[in-house]
Parts: sequence; C-alpha cells; structure tokens
Amino acid sequence: MTIPAPLTGVVPPVCTPLTPEREVDVDSLHRLLGHLMAGGVHGLFVLGSTSEAAYLTDRQRELVVSETVRHVAGRLPVLAGAIDMTTPRVLERVASVTAAGADAVVVTAPFYARTHPAEIARHYRLVAAASPVPVLAYDIPPAVHTKLPAGLVLELAGEGVLAGLKDSSGDLAAFREVVSGARTRPGLTGFTVLTGSELLVDTALALGADGAVPGLANVDPHGYVRLDRLCRDGDHTRARTEQERLCALHGMVHAGDPARMGPGSSAIGAFKAALHLRGVIACPATADPQVPLTEPEVAAVGRFLTAAGLL
Amino acid sequence: MTIPAPLTGVVPPVCTPLTPEREVDVDSLHRLLGHLMAGGVHGLFVLGSTSEAAYLTDRQRELVVSETVRHVAGRLPVLAGAIDMTTPRVLERVASVTAAGADAVVVTAPFYARTHPAEIARHYRLVAAASPVPVLAYDIPPAVHTKLPAGLVLELAGEGVLAGLKDSSGDLAAFREVVSGARTRPGLTGFTVLTGSELLVDTALALGADGAVPGLANVDPHGYVRLDRLCRDGDHTRARTEQERLCALHGMVHAGDPARMGPGSSAIGAFKAALHLRGVIACPATADPQVPLTEPEVAAVGRFLTAAGLL
Amino acid sequence: MTIPAPLTGVVPPVCTPLTPEREVDVDSLHRLLGHLMAGGVHGLFVLGSTSEAAYLTDRQRELVVSETVRHVAGRLPVLAGAIDMTTPRVLERVASVTAAGADAVVVTAPFYARTHPAEIARHYRLVAAASPVPVLAYDIPPAVHTKLPAGLVLELAGEGVLAGLKDSSGDLAAFREVVSGARTRPGLTGFTVLTGSELLVDTALALGADGAVPGLANVDPHGYVRLDRLCRDGDHTRARTEQERLCALHGMVHAGDPARMGPGSSAIGAFKAALHLRGVIACPATADPQVPLTEPEVAAVGRFLTAAGLL
Amino acid sequence: MTIPAPLTGVVPPVCTPLTPEREVDVDSLHRLLGHLMAGGVHGLFVLGSTSEAAYLTDRQRELVVSETVRHVAGRLPVLAGAIDMTTPRVLERVASVTAAGADAVVVTAPFYARTHPAEIARHYRLVAAASPVPVLAYDIPPAVHTKLPAGLVLELAGEGVLAGLKDSSGDLAAFREVVSGARTRPGLTGFTVLTGSELLVDTALALGADGAVPGLANVDPHGYVRLDRLCRDGDHTRARTEQERLCALHGMVHAGDPARMGPGSSAIGAFKAALHLRGVIACPATADPQVPLTEPEVAAVGRFLTAAGLL
Repeated sequence: MTIPAPLTGVVPPVCTPLTPEREVDVDSLHRLLGHLMAGGVHGLFVLGSTSEAAYLTDRQRELVVSETVRHVAGRLPVLAGAIDMTTPRVLERVASVTAAGADAVVVTAPFYARTHPAEIARHYRLVAAASPVPVLAYDIPPAVHTKLPAGLVLELAGEGVLAGLKDSSGDLAAFREVVSGARTRPGLTGFTVLTGSELLVDTALALGADGAVPGLANVDPHGYVRLDRLCRDGDHTRARTEQERLCALHGMVHAGDPARMGPGSSAIGAFKAALHLRGVIACPATADPQVPLTEPEVAAVGRFLTAAGLL
Repeated sequence: MTIPAPLTGVVPPVCTPLTPEREVDVDSLHRLLGHLMAGGVHGLFVLGSTSEAAYLTDRQRELVVSETVRHVAGRLPVLAGAIDMTTPRVLERVASVTAAGADAVVVTAPFYARTHPAEIARHYRLVAAASPVPVLAYDIPPAVHTKLPAGLVLELAGEGVLAGLKDSSGDLAAFREVVSGARTRPGLTGFTVLTGSELLVDTALALGADGAVPGLANVDPHGYVRLDRLCRDGDHTRARTEQERLCALHGMVHAGDPARMGPGSSAIGAFKAALHLRGVIACPATADPQVPLTEPEVAAVGRFLTAAGLL
Repeated sequence: MTIPAPLTGVVPPVCTPLTPEREVDVDSLHRLLGHLMAGGVHGLFVLGSTSEAAYLTDRQRELVVSETVRHVAGRLPVLAGAIDMTTPRVLERVASVTAAGADAVVVTAPFYARTHPAEIARHYRLVAAASPVPVLAYDIPPAVHTKLPAGLVLELAGEGVLAGLKDSSGDLAAFREVVSGARTRPGLTGFTVLTGSELLVDTALALGADGAVPGLANVDPHGYVRLDRLCRDGDHTRARTEQERLCALHGMVHAGDPARMGPGSSAIGAFKAALHLRGVIACPATADPQVPLTEPEVAAVGRFLTAAGLL
Repeated sequence: MTIPAPLTGVVPPVCTPLTPEREVDVDSLHRLLGHLMAGGVHGLFVLGSTSEAAYLTDRQRELVVSETVRHVAGRLPVLAGAIDMTTPRVLERVASVTAAGADAVVVTAPFYARTHPAEIARHYRLVAAASPVPVLAYDIPPAVHTKLPAGLVLELAGEGVLAGLKDSSGDLAAFREVVSGARTRPGLTGFTVLTGSELLVDTALALGADGAVPGLANVDPHGYVRLDRLCRDGDHTRARTEQERLCALHGMVHAGDPARMGPGSSAIGAFKAALHLRGVIACPATADPQVPLTEPEVAAVGRFLTAAGLL
C-alpha cells in the first residue's frame, strides 16, 4: 500500500518474539500483531531498535517483514527499518525489506564509520534515489552517535529525499523546529514527523507532530491509541492523565539491575516479559548478547502491569 | 595456516581498491597485496576500518578475503574483520570470512545497540565458542563508542576467549596495562598485543607490544618494516627518526577540507590517492557516501609523498 | 524577601551589561531591570549563564546582586547563581550573594573536578546546611558535564535540601519526571520546577512546571509574560502561536559565524546586541574571551527584532 | 626566580595537606615539600588538579603558594595553577599567585562556558599579555572538556604567548606532535613540554618531552627522579623496569569503591592516605564534597606501598 502523507497516529515499533533458541517465533509474532491491531494502532514499524533489529540476521529480518506484511494484508501501512552502517549496505537492506513488502523504509545516518553532515546528506540522497518506497529518517543519537540537524532534515524534505522523520533524539526543541518547519515551509505538505518517545506523546502532538512510535505501545496499545484520541480531541486534562499513567507503566524499563546489564537488555527484556505475562508471546527471550531479567526482575515488571490495570 | 602466538611485526590493515563503479577492483587488490609483501610485512589484516569494511557489502567482504587468501597462499597469516553490530550478526560474518580462508577474526564490542561490560564479555565468549579460528578483540572507541577495559581484555585472555588485541583506542596508558598484564600474568603466553596507531609504533614496541597495524603502511610498507626492525634491534635513535618521517607522511590524512568531509573520507581518500599516485591501484575511489578529494587535495597528498621520498 | 513556594511565572536570567572596558555598566543594568519589570516578569535570576556569571569576577558578581536588590526593593524575588567548582568555593559565593541581598541561590553540581552522584548529593547537603536562603539546583549539562538524575533531585527535595530546580538540560522526559514527582510525592508541596528553555515554555507549563527562566526574555519580556498568561488561561492555540513567534525570534542566537566563535559568544552577543538596538543598554560588549559580533551579524539581529515587531 | 627554558625533569603536582577541619595544614605542607626536595625533584607545581585546586578557596590557594615559595627559597622553580573559568577570573588568579611568588602560571582553556578554538587562542593571548611571569598551557580534557589542538599550542608558542605545555590529555599522538613541532620549528627553542601521566613518563621522555608532572611523585619522588635519570642515561631496560614498578604502585588510585565515590575522591584519597601512612602528612583528609576512603580501602593503599618497598 502507499503510506499516507502524512502518516498519523500510533505506529508501534513491533517487538520481535524469539524462541528459546533465538529464532523468530512466527506464531508469537502473529499474536503480537493481532494484539496491536486489536488495540487500534494506525501503522506498524518493524526492525527498529525496540524490534532488536541490531540483533537480527538479514534472514530473520526478512522473515519478520514478510510475516508482518502477510498478517496485515494491506489493512495498515508497514514501515521497516533498513539498519546498517553505510550506503552500500543500507541499499541491500532496503532491497530486502521492500522485496518482502514494506511500504516505507526507515534509515539512520551512517554509523561505525565517522561521518559528517555532507556525507549524511549524500547518504540519504543515494538511498532515496534507489529506494522503491518512501524513506523516513531515523534520528537516534544513542545508537548512531550523531544528531540529525533540524535544518538538514528540512532541506532533504524540501528536495523530496525524505518523506518523514522518526525522532528518538530526546531533543524536543530540535523536534519542534522540524515540526514547525514542516508546517510552514512551502512544499512540505505531507511530510511525516513522528516522535519515538513513550513519555512525551501528548507533548509532541501538542507541538503539531503527526504521531508517535512508542515502544511501550507493544505492552499497552490501547492506552496509546486512547492518548492519541484524547490529544486530537483537545482534551488536554484527560490526555495528561493518560500520558502520566503510561509514564508510570514505563518505569518497567528500569527493572533490570544496571550493575548486571545495559539499559537495552533491561528495557527490551521488560517489554518482552510484560508481553509474556500478558499471554501475548510464548517466550520472553531477548537476543544475544543481551542479559536476561531474573525472576524477581520479571516479578517487578508484573507489578507495573498490575498497577496499570493490565494484569 | 595457524597464526603465530604471538603474532609479531607489521600487519597492515589492507585498503580495499574499488572501481569507479564501487566494485572491488580485484586486479588492484592483488597489486596492493604484492606491494605489501614486497615491503616485507609480517601479516595482513583485511576488513578493518582502513579497509572500509563498514562500507562493503557481505559479498564484497567475502571476495576480499578469498582473493587475499588466494594471493598470499599461506605465506603470511591473514586476519579478517568480522564487523557487525551484535553477536548473531557477527557470527554470520565469522562464518563467512573463515569459509573464505581467514586465519583469525578481529571482532569489536557490540555497537549501535547500547551495551555494558557484562554484555561485551558475553559477546566475546559466544563468538569465541563458535569461531573455528582465534578471535582478536578490536578496541576502536571512535567507531564503537565504548572502550574495552584493560581488565576485561586480560580476563578474557586468561579464559582463552581472546587470542589478542588490536588497539585503536589512542589510550596508551590502558594499552600498556594490557601489554604488562600479558607479559606477567600466568597463562597469557602467546597473547598478541598490536597497536593500531601509525604515530606510536616505536613507542608501542618499546612498551613491549608485539606489533602494529598501521593504515599508513599501505602507502609505505617498507618504512614500517624498517621501523619495526630498528625497534627490535634496540636502535632507538634511528627508530625515532624513521617514526618521525612516517609521522610527517601521516599528515596526508588531513588533506581533505573538514568543512566538506569527515575525517574518514579525508584519511582513506588520502591513502588511496597515494596508492594511485604511486601506481599501485588503478582508481582512488572510496565507497559511498564518502566525499572524494578534490584535485588540489590530491596534489597535496602528492607533496607528502615527494617529501617522504616516495614519489 | 522570602521567595514564594513554589515560585511561578517568568523569571528572566538577567543579562549583565558591560562598559567598553568590561566593567559592569550599572546604569544600563538599572535600565534593563526596569525594562524587565515593566514587562511584568515574576522574579529575577542574576548570575546565571545568560548573565555571563562565568566571566564576572567575584567583585563584579557582588555588585550585580547588590544593585539588583536595590533596584527591585522587595517587589520581586531575586535569585542569584553561586557558580563555582566545588563546595568550599560555592559556600563563599553563597555567603557573598546573600550578604548582597539575594533571596535564593542557584547552585550547580561540582564541575572541573570529576564527580559522582554521591558527591553531588553531599555537595548539595553541605551547601544547603550553610546557606541562609533556599537553594535551587541548576541542571546545566553543557556547562557542568553531568546531568542531575531526576531521582536524586526528588530525593534531595524530599529531605528539604533543595527548594527547586532550574532545568537547562534539554531533556524534557527527565524534566517531566521531576515535575510529576514534585506534584505527587508527599512533602514536596512548594518545590519549584523551572525550565531554562526559551523554546519549550508552553510545553513545560503544560507538563505542570511552575515557570520559566528564558534568556530571550531579556529581549522580549512582554512576550514571555503574555505566553505565561495564555498557558495559565488554558488558551493552547494562542499560546502556541506566541511561543512560535518567540521561537522565530530566538533564531537570533545563530547570528554569529560558527567558524569564528562559539555558541555562547553568538547567543549572548545577540541578546546584548538586541538590547542595545532596542535602546535598553548602552553598549553591547560581552566579556573576554568571547568574540564580538560583526556589523553584518548585528544587522541580522536587527532583522529578527523587526520581524517580531520589536524594532 | 626565572624558570629554566625549557624546564626539565620531575615537577610534582604538590598535594595540599588539609586539617580535619579542611584548612591548609601548613606544617604538613612544609614536611611534604621537604620530602619532595629530598627526593631530588626539579621543580614544583602547586594548585594543579592533584593539589585539589578546584576545591581550595582563593585565600587557601594564596597561602599554598606563599608557603611553598617561602619553603623553597629560590632553590627550585615554583609553578602555580591559575584555575578559573574565563579570562577575567583567571587574570585575578594570576595576579594573586604571582603576588605570592609563583615563578610561572599554568592555565587551562575556558571551562563551564562553552568555548571555541578562536576564543581559547584569545584567552591565552590576553592572559599572557597581563601575566608578569611565563604562561604554560594546561591541557586537561577530563576537567575542561575540550582538547587543546596541537597546532594551536604550537602557534601560540611561536607567538611567544605560551612558554610551555602541561599535557594531561592522555592523547600521546597529539603530545608527540607538540614535542616534534617544538623541536623542529624555528623560534621554539626553550618551549617546555611536560607530560602529566604517571604511567608514561619513560615513553614521553623517549619522544623528546622535557619532563613530567606525575601526581604519584608525591608518594614516591625518589622513584620518579630515578626514572628520569635512567631515561636521560639511555638505560631503556632499567627505565622500563622502574616505570613498571611505578605503574604497579599507581594501582592505588583504584582503592576507593566506584559505587561510593568518583575517580578523583579515590585517587587523591589514595595519595593522601599513602602520604599519611608514610608519615609525611598529619591527616589524610580530602576537601568537600569528596568522599573519604574507608579503613579497608586505606589498608589496600598500604599494601601497594609495601609491595613497592615504601613502607
């Protein structure tokens, strides 16, 4: 399908359920997709950071896309990350995920290689020229170690290189600059601006963002869809209450002991533990070399679910 | 072949010659390998940062290894980078480069994914368990954005997980800690410690390092082999003079205008321009999205060669 | 006077007008204070980053506080930065600015010295124990190079060590955590949470913040007071319009050429140029070693004023 | 006295002994100075990082300089840090320490304030123009959060602005660039290049550095003087053995638990505990808000002394 321009609403970055042997658990993936669609989400983003894209082999990535496309059957737009280090490798990922049916690709700046704004611009121009589907920029400095400058995003939007931005930078002032630019500059109608923050969806929508890509929406899609609705209805008070409920639920990402694991192991581990506790996926395993949550840490995740009325 | 334990001497990170269409230029690669072997180098490291590994597709990487192994025909050990984000992806790279004949693999900490010392340790243990050849750690914080702690390297060396370290961290005090530990702790005989710095080879060898992996040795292998020899002979004065000649030659990495390109485009561009000017490779192209040097910038590279007596 | 608990509204970080000889221009300071009070601001913050506190000698700092206190004459609360590297030095600054009449002090984490959360906590406890007036934490990672963790701020608030937070971290998710904690935890009534961002005042107030400390309010106090009023009245649409007008005006901070000066020289230089163009201060000089704006750069500042209807 | 040009040898950054009430312990300071001079050091550097300059009030700093100058009585050059945020504040520190008798001042780039190479250059030019004694640059990125570029140091040396460099950057390749430049460029005769690394003194001298400023020389001045002598005699083997003994002794800086304190509290705490155990100073207290070592941690420091033959 052609993705809407702009794409609006809640577009969860879909977790990738794994078997105990760390293969993609296709049955659980279908159950998770059903759970998200039942929650009323407006699109799906596979192969992002929350999807453990960095941990999946190319074969596994392709399987995730093709199964998701098969499940969705055109009812929702499917965005897919094409996460790799530089242009030639990203182009292969783009070819692979679009052959599997993705409706748009989400692409970061080059990483591992030291880079420069001129090289980032060149990267996006080359990727867009070769991509059969629209390209969204993925601004995720904790992974990529550069910040996409707002001016560059708007410049590439104006050229038609970028169809949108998925912002996981945490820099709301720069995000606002893109949102405002996209709304006021000529020729940018239809440019999609999505926030990746679970904690600031109400805020981002109030600034004029089109939608959100909240990892926590795997756990509580209904909550984020409700929040999106309240924001669009201008019901600021109830929106803030719903957002704060979700902020409290988000506390689960700190369940893992920071002396024993990194923040990714803890956050992804918590989301998968929550999906397992809620009966959506069969196994909470995360990919290697992430460290699994202990039983008491999983129990702590359960208490967050209970407090939020989800268990 | 089995790599020596420890591996000593000059082990250049081999540039990857490209055609104007950005395919691996196999003829030029063979000429470059011949040039390095004629220079008397002691081993070869393909698919490192200087090799533009981050820019090569998996197919291109495999081609580089198999052609190098074919060229070398067992006369020198061939180390290959297995550069990817996390354990499952690195394992595929290890399988691919060892199938193509690499004698050892060089592996970084996880990147893109946020990580933790416990996860880094787990990563190396899992990679070593699955690798058919010895594993060297590649400490390159400018690419990976974490520093391998000296204590962790020594711990993994003691377990037999790591066979060596290729240090591109620039932190000579930490490097010294590994060198000293490798020499004094029981059970670490044979552990290889290599510096990645072009500018401190004499220094690293004086500390007790086994060898060096200098990118600039592509341009002047004879110089680095001479330097290695002088250091091993204890001729400190002539070693320093040779090293300082090479430091001056290294100035070429700043040939590219920092307003127009990143430091990688400039440095790799300069090495390739120098190899082209010296008649070793057919085309100085670097991979996308790197920015090419201009004609005056190439001329500046030429002046460095002339000043060093290489043109 | 006793500062309100919480302190609400617009509390500009007051610029420090200088003579061409880089002495405090007391007459211009009084005119600036009159300009801010005529704009309806709710408090004043002297000796913050926008005040060039880092560039003023202790004697100059004391003069700024005493003149401000004399001008204000109890009509508004006066907060003063006590900016220095570590506890013993900060205690001297606290003694100095409170002797000069400051109603509250604003204190950063230790800097220059490498620090640790336990040492930061100890620092604030020792400062608060010795301070005759309430202590607000100043979270400004670009200057101090550590981020105050939200949990630590709330813990120190609960102990009565901190009376408030001035957040210039740019991390709105962490800011929200403090705001929510301050509103929901027992015993934190009266804790003041202020944003330092010029660009997100509407957003911060929507999250429940008490007020703002926007450097740009030196230039346009009426605009920020109007924005504060609209936010408190729940008039979200007009608030956003006013905020976006101020965002556009804020573009002046980029007037200085980044090839010739740092972002501080450019931003403070622009604020002072604007105050000079508006006839508020006699001389736009900034302290050494900052680089002055050129004439065309000052003209660019003037165009921002004109576009915003301020000239 | 006029400092030698260049200044060579071992120039310890003198610890500042404190009383339990955190006042300068003048008697202990004199004993420490006697201990260092008995060890044969070639100069003294007060008010550096190891001296806890960041924690001392201006009055305490002045006392340290005047007592040191009185003790030394012209027998050794006394360098003093003039550590503050920006030019106007540094100029006051320079006036204060030179009035107290310092023979040279050591000055960092601006900190706290965001800065730029052009502003750093302007800072040093203004400081040098106003200083009655030679100015050495203090390159300490962990404190100041910028690295002094080698090219800028050499440029300012060529202008006569800088008389030397005290390098605590850990970047030995950049250090080598300054050393080589100082030796080969016309007009730089007499420029002093000192390393601040305890762990690489032999290495730095082998590169051509003039001397070292090792914090650990407070604990073992005889060892560093011996090392300096061996290096100058070209006795590389025994120099390396001595250096490695000192590297092992340096392990004491990790005595403090990183879960309870920062690296500064641990390192300075260990040096002072060692000086106390060796009977040089009366009290091992460090300045606030640093966290003191526990009894078992002090015992660990003692074991390092015993192993090095110092207790």
